[in-house]
Amino acid sequence: MNILNERIKTDGIVIKERILKIDSFLNHQIDPKIMNYVVSEFKEYFKNSGITKVLTIEASGIAPAIMTAAAFEVPMLFAKKAKPNSMTSDFYVTNIYSYTKEENRTVIISKEFLNKNDRVLIIDDFLAMGEASLGLIDLVKQADAEVAGIGICVEKSFQIGRQRLEDAGVDVFSISRITSLKDNTIRFMEG
Amino acid sequence: MNILNERIKTDGIVIKERILKIDSFLNHQIDPKIMNYVVSEFKEYFKNSGITKVLTIEASGIAPAIMTAAAFEVPMLFAKKAKPNSMTSDFYVTNIYSYTKEENRTVIISKEFLNKNDRVLIIDDFLAMGEASLGLIDLVKQADAEVAGIGICVEKSFQIGRQRLEDAGVDVFSISRITSLKDNTIRFMEG
Repeated sequence: MNILNERIKTDGIVIKERILKIDSFLNHQIDPKIMNYVVSEFKEYFKNSGITKVLTIEASGIAPAIMTAAAFEVPMLFAKKAKPNSMTSDFYVTNIYSYTKEENRTVIISKEFLNKNDRVLIIDDFLAMGEASLGLIDLVKQADAEVAGIGICVEKSFQIGRQRLEDAGVDVFSISRITSLKDNTIRFMEG
Repeated sequence: MNILNERIKTDGIVIKERILKIDSFLNHQIDPKIMNYVVSEFKEYFKNSGITKVLTIEASGIAPAIMTAAAFEVPMLFAKKAKPNSMTSDFYVTNIYSYTKEENRTVIISKEFLNKNDRVLIIDDFLAMGEASLGLIDLVKQADAEVAGIGICVEKSFQIGRQRLEDAGVDVFSISRITSLKDNTIRFMEG
């Protein structure tokens, strides 16, 4: 049984047929039982991928990312929001557009924590337009490291994020795949 | 053996006798081994405190907080940075001054996730002036909930944070207590 789907059915709230509010257990209040389930699925799917590092972006990616890193016994790294004027040559820098907030965010990681020998598992709580994941892929590429895959808790499959990531040649594994929020009803992909 | 102190001795970098840079394992890149150790100490210390919820503030408090919540099998809640104009009656709101960034941050939690029956364990990565913890205490009090204690990964004991929290009547438990960064040397509290 997919306990994340079950929990979304029980506690998810649809707003305007487009926004899914699941902040009671995933991205404001976080239920460790859901995290344990999600992480066990990531571990099973990526167990032979030679993961050396887990990468996410602050803030709501951090909880699933650190628990995934603990399961793989590798370090977790999170991209930090930064002011453009705080840039130095010590950081890899990328820009991520937020459709929700309608603004560009500059995010950074320290160069010392990612290198060409790393095989990176990118983790995030949500996939919709794919902007955050594409930004994280860009950071991995700047470091000449390899993206081993992307693990997503909740994917809005009716938006173009997955397609954009697959077009970038990346393996995307999502625990929950939502096909529609129309009529204020949450529908999931079969199987 | 205190493996957090050992790691700080090995990898901590002192800047200007006042700033301790430990972003290789605690607050940018995060080592799950260190998190597991920290969490096991929190669990032992607060095991009889009747914790119903773990509270922290984004971003770097989230990793130790979710793993502590998993150990106690209770939900974790993190206060979010918010723009003042996004306030509604659905949130508890408080202001936190950052001495590092020299700016005020407005942070919020949804009222629905904290109530008078909660016994809250506040978790953070760093304690220096105590501003973040005092803000989180304020949020707990607005909800008429009770602060069961504060768990800190790294305390700069030569700053006034601990004293301010103790003056507020709160039990503070820190895994690493640093007494001085003078002469670019990291000194720890005995015992």
